[in-house]
Amino acid sequence: MTTHKLLLLPGDGIGPEAMAEVGKIVAVLNGAGGDRFETEEALVGGAAIDAHGVPVADRDMDRALKADAVLFGAVGGPKWDGVAYEIRPEAGLLRLRKDMALFANLRPAICYPALAEASSLKRELVDGLDILILRELTGGVYFGIPKEIVDLGEGQKRGIDTQVYETYEIERIARAAFEAARTRKGKVTSMEKRNVMKTGVLWNEVVSRVGRDEYPDVRLEHMLADAGGMQLVRAPKQFDVIVTDNLFGDMLSDIAAMLTGSLGMLPSASLGAPDAATGKRRALYEPVHGSAPDIAGQGIANPIAMIASFAMMLRYSFALMREADALEAAIAAVLESGTRTGDIMAPGCRQVGTAEMGDAVAAEF
Amino acid sequence: MTTHKLLLLPGDGIGPEAMAEVGKIVAVLNGAGGDRFETEEALVGGAAIDAHGVPVADRDMDRALKADAVLFGAVGGPKWDGVAYEIRPEAGLLRLRKDMALFANLRPAICYPALAEASSLKRELVDGLDILILRELTGGVYFGIPKEIVDLGEGQKRGIDTQVYETYEIERIARAAFEAARTRKGKVTSMEKRNVMKTGVLWNEVVSRVGRDEYPDVRLEHMLADAGGMQLVRAPKQFDVIVTDNLFGDMLSDIAAMLTGSLGMLPSASLGAPDAATGKRRALYEPVHGSAPDIAGQGIANPIAMIASFAMMLRYSFALMREADALEAAIAAVLESGTRTGDIMAPGCRQVGTAEMGDAVAAEF
Ligand SMILES: CC(C)[C@H](C(=O)O)[C@@H](O)C(=O)O
Ligand SMILES: CC(C)[C@H](C(=O)O)[C@@H](O)C(=O)O
Repeated sequence: MTTHKLLLLPGDGIGPEAMAEVGKIVAVLNGAGGDRFETEEALVGGAAIDAHGVPVADRDMDRALKADAVLFGAVGGPKWDGVAYEIRPEAGLLRLRKDMALFANLRPAICYPALAEASSLKRELVDGLDILILRELTGGVYFGIPKEIVDLGEGQKRGIDTQVYETYEIERIARAAFEAARTRKGKVTSMEKRNVMKTGVLWNEVVSRVGRDEYPDVRLEHMLADAGGMQLVRAPKQFDVIVTDNLFGDMLSDIAAMLTGSLGMLPSASLGAPDAATGKRRALYEPVHGSAPDIAGQGIANPIAMIASFAMMLRYSFALMREADALEAAIAAVLESGTRTGDIMAPGCRQVGTAEMGDAVAAEF
Repeated sequence: MTTHKLLLLPGDGIGPEAMAEVGKIVAVLNGAGGDRFETEEALVGGAAIDAHGVPVADRDMDRALKADAVLFGAVGGPKWDGVAYEIRPEAGLLRLRKDMALFANLRPAICYPALAEASSLKRELVDGLDILILRELTGGVYFGIPKEIVDLGEGQKRGIDTQVYETYEIERIARAAFEAARTRKGKVTSMEKRNVMKTGVLWNEVVSRVGRDEYPDVRLEHMLADAGGMQLVRAPKQFDVIVTDNLFGDMLSDIAAMLTGSLGMLPSASLGAPDAATGKRRALYEPVHGSAPDIAGQGIANPIAMIASFAMMLRYSFALMREADALEAAIAAVLESGTRTGDIMAPGCRQVGTAEMGDAVAAEF
């Protein structure tokens, strides 16, 4: 019998509440006689700053590196707005991404049919929407050096960030996008600003070559990132897989998520390269939504994005396809039945809290 | 009698067709006995590459610097996709912005009531929308150095772009935003990624200080740029003035423009600092839309964004407020009457070409 060791990092705000509901799903799986899951918890973000003075302790970083997969909640909140840049809550998440070498961030933007009405877009534009955004996650302006503020005297400072990409970094995220497209509708749209940025020129060149040489069966199209943002808002269904850099991916994937009307529902996966010997890859799964400090601790947060992140883990880390499908179907069924947390409440539906929603999904699973 | 000297740079694609319609408006003004307008034309973008081998000739750059205002069409098209990065069509526009020191880019995102239905957003979310985006235009990742691709050998290259902002650059665009807010609803939203970028930290610090010390009467709010993009899509009417950097401004203003359903209608102004002695400021006005090579030369392009850009010129360069208001009212009246180019055609309306649309606006003016 296979046992999977998971590290849970609930973080701040609604992270812990939402994470607690995943325990119910794990219990169902552990009672089913298949693969077993062992979980341990650690602090990250503001909670880790309060306890250890850093947004992720070295010892916990070590556990993340050794775990079979990491499930992450959310970090940050007004309480830590004043802490130094170097130890701010987000630095914990960025260190996890970088030290675990999670270069491929998969962000599905799907529109749950039961929620299409919640989108700010007209229903016909988002109904049935199913996009996968592949965001490069360990390079670009997030990590490039120099990254500093220099005091120039006389009240003047200079802030600098550096966007850097090397060929191999673009190749591997491009391959991840083409591979994903092969299991979907066979189309990749690459977005950059090659008309302004040299990294955009290199990005375009490398993605084009990888497509031509290795994936001639996949349709490849290029868009400037500003035009791509417009097209996402105008006609999102034209896309299948979008591949883009760390910063554009941050913006574009959030916009795509918001379009679906299902922001509180959307999961993400951040994956490393498969180990040459074992085939295993490091992975961290997290909801797309943030820590929502305004509603934290009230038991009203929507745990579905977290549960859906766990479903992605079943699929991508453990190849438990049947279980992942069943969990996603359970989420859709609960929504169809009209059970809703406050964020997705609609006329004629039944409003429930975080724990009840977790119970409902576990019962359907 | 005052005479204003204008340099017209029609550029590529639909630029020349749309620019021709402005001539009709100029003729009305010159016949009215008030300020006079003298125009001369020069090449920019692909057209300049074809004629001079560079996307803007030094001689024309000089004319731009001497003109009282510049009206710009659009640049680029598939014909010039293969030209070297340094002389690509966009480099002409970027040189104009930089050499004319046009640091403040004003992009109104307004929803013409007659066109609210054309938005991909639900009508009630955009009806009456009126946002002004202040985009910093001469700094950031567009111009920072190093900006290069380095060959590392063994098939590897490194692309680098540099985002740089100094205090004074942020101060002046912040002031432009606060001043604009004072003539509007009195609210500024500043967007950056201070949780990831050092330029975002500096941006936030400087905008906060300018607001506190110089504009305590204006409400200032901060949003992370990714959250800002989401909020634009979710509930755009919450914004009045948005101030942001060059790259975020590029993305966010395009998205805001698309939201209105009026993309073919939206103008922009790029302004320099007022001259200490004369109070005059360099200025370039241009439609938000691009060169649309797919429909160029067919006489079907919508000239309204170009005409509205000219209206902005009347207001910002020549303080001809009454004339600017009248021109904008003429555009709205023509739309209300159901006269439409193909891009904004709707059931029950009358479809016209570029020249007829220009005639209609000139007749109302
Ligand atoms: C929290 C923050 C550092 C992060 C990012 O910018 O990557 C977040 O916005 C995200 O998209 O995961
Ligand atoms: C043409 C291009 C260089 C330009 C930019 O990126 O600034 C355009 O997208 C714009 O927004 O004016």
